[in-house]
Amino acid sequence: MGVSVAIVGATGAVGQEMIKTLIDRNFPADEIRLLASHRSAGKKVEVRGEELEIQELTHESFEGIRIGLFSAGGSISKEFAPSAVKAGAVVVDNTSAFRMDENTPLVVPEVNPGAIAKHKGIIANPNCSTIQMVLVLKPLYDISRIKRIVVSTYQAVSGAGAKAILEMQEETRALLDGTTYERKIFPHQVAFNALPQIGQKNAFQENGYTDEEMKMVKETVKIFSDPNIRVTATTVRIPVVRGHSESVNVEFENKITVEEARKALAAFPGIVVQDDPKNQIYPLASECVGKYETFVGRLRQDLSCENALNMWIVSDNLLKGAALNAVQIAEKLI
Amino acid sequence: MGVSVAIVGATGAVGQEMIKTLIDRNFPADEIRLLASHRSAGKKVEVRGEELEIQELTHESFEGIRIGLFSAGGSISKEFAPSAVKAGAVVVDNTSAFRMDENTPLVVPEVNPGAIAKHKGIIANPNCSTIQMVLVLKPLYDISRIKRIVVSTYQAVSGAGAKAILEMQEETRALLDGTTYERKIFPHQVAFNALPQIGQKNAFQENGYTDEEMKMVKETVKIFSDPNIRVTATTVRIPVVRGHSESVNVEFENKITVEEARKALAAFPGIVVQDDPKNQIYPLASECVGKYETFVGRLRQDLSCENALNMWIVSDNLLKGAALNAVQIAEKLI
Repeated sequence: MGVSVAIVGATGAVGQEMIKTLIDRNFPADEIRLLASHRSAGKKVEVRGEELEIQELTHESFEGIRIGLFSAGGSISKEFAPSAVKAGAVVVDNTSAFRMDENTPLVVPEVNPGAIAKHKGIIANPNCSTIQMVLVLKPLYDISRIKRIVVSTYQAVSGAGAKAILEMQEETRALLDGTTYERKIFPHQVAFNALPQIGQKNAFQENGYTDEEMKMVKETVKIFSDPNIRVTATTVRIPVVRGHSESVNVEFENKITVEEARKALAAFPGIVVQDDPKNQIYPLASECVGKYETFVGRLRQDLSCENALNMWIVSDNLLKGAALNAVQIAEKLI
Repeated sequence: MGVSVAIVGATGAVGQEMIKTLIDRNFPADEIRLLASHRSAGKKVEVRGEELEIQELTHESFEGIRIGLFSAGGSISKEFAPSAVKAGAVVVDNTSAFRMDENTPLVVPEVNPGAIAKHKGIIANPNCSTIQMVLVLKPLYDISRIKRIVVSTYQAVSGAGAKAILEMQEETRALLDGTTYERKIFPHQVAFNALPQIGQKNAFQENGYTDEEMKMVKETVKIFSDPNIRVTATTVRIPVVRGHSESVNVEFENKITVEEARKALAAFPGIVVQDDPKNQIYPLASECVGKYETFVGRLRQDLSCENALNMWIVSDNLLKGAALNAVQIAEKLI
């Protein structure tokens, strides 16, 4: 007998990928219940050749549900995840609502699968920019502990939702055509630009970092259960539709050569090494779209620090960065 | 009496900005001689209300010239700069041909003006990505020596020349319209993407770094005359027309607070501090175009390293990164 799955936020960019990923991976779901706001209720979505109607999310939506995949914003998760848990479901939450909660495991299945068993009803999916980085760092961490990470990101607009993709595309066209376009989502022009701000107006904390940057700092420590890993991050939005890229500088306790790193990375599940610079082969956002793997290349010994490596990490932020990781957690649960 | 100036590479993206900058800054030129390849010879360009004909660059082009501004590629500089020097001119070379030559000063006028006097006929303009970084680091270096720099760049396509701008724009339109476009300059799709490669097919060195990355490492040390500054760089092309952005992590010998840094930066010539994140104010490539200043913001204490700061540096790569810096050197020469 199969499993009943509810998707909260079924009409969003991540929700749509959750549906596709469940089907593509033959997740043994005997029911996929699509939940969204009142606005979307009644809309029909084709799933496995069947028309499914989107239902309005209420506190009673979770009867008979075994797994709830949440991706409708932190406040929705805070309000409705407890109802799902009360109804007997395990929630895999893609928002930041519970990530730093000490009773909530924060899981990347290839990195810390053991944390799943400790859940008390809710398991948190890390932030997209964190997931692809910790996944690549895991096989290297298994060789030598990590002392410090300096990361700068090149993040796709789809991280800000389906409407953000449209806004970037329409703004791009307006700039090419010399016409005007009214911005609604991004704080500044995002087309043909680089915005050193992820998140909305309230994104900045007192220390000058954005929430997104602090997520990379804190989530990395929690996922590795290693308070000695120090992280500093600069997170930047660029005009890419899908696929986050990251320039990552990692200092290890002991030296890892580029060859050792390549070998360990190539042997690890979910990672593809694309590292042949002489032939101009390295990970690219444009080539990661729709793929489950996380890509790493531009591996170099850091000339400024003996035990450090530089690398370039790319993954589809809607898949491994969100929907896929959540579905992988659900797969481990059943 | 004025000065005769020759511009080698007058039809290029940087050459065009050199002409504009000379005029805009009222450079006391009694002649501006425009030199380019055979292909461009005979074309007319309006300069100060006068039609100037582009002349073919030959070894005899420099008679009577006092200052030669070169920006037509390294091989042209190597071949023709010696002829200009022989004719009595001082060459300000914007290519990488002579930058690391020990007899050639490498100059950012605000940083190491004293080096100009040591020239033996040629003065090198540093690489665009280096100039804006060392300019911002100078007032901080004056407070505390720099131990280490970890930099990731977000570079505009205009750094690859005027045709590269067109290619990126046409590729962008083709992707929006779902049509095809043949790429000639970039190794991969540059529209809606992030390419961790600056330069052509031969850009990569044996150590895995690109020439562009190694320029940032070596030029920084040379400009500061400080072999103890260690630098590691990841240089990336993004779909921006003009304006390089840089995520820079700097470790100092002694701690500099964000407030001290802001104060020193604001007082330094050529630097504008844009650092009010609560109001979403920080440097943006889209806003630096056509401006002489270099912009810095997102100043933060690095939480992973006691004496380090993070910052976001933006400047017009064709101006301070190329034409303006060359003209500033010429101004110091006369």
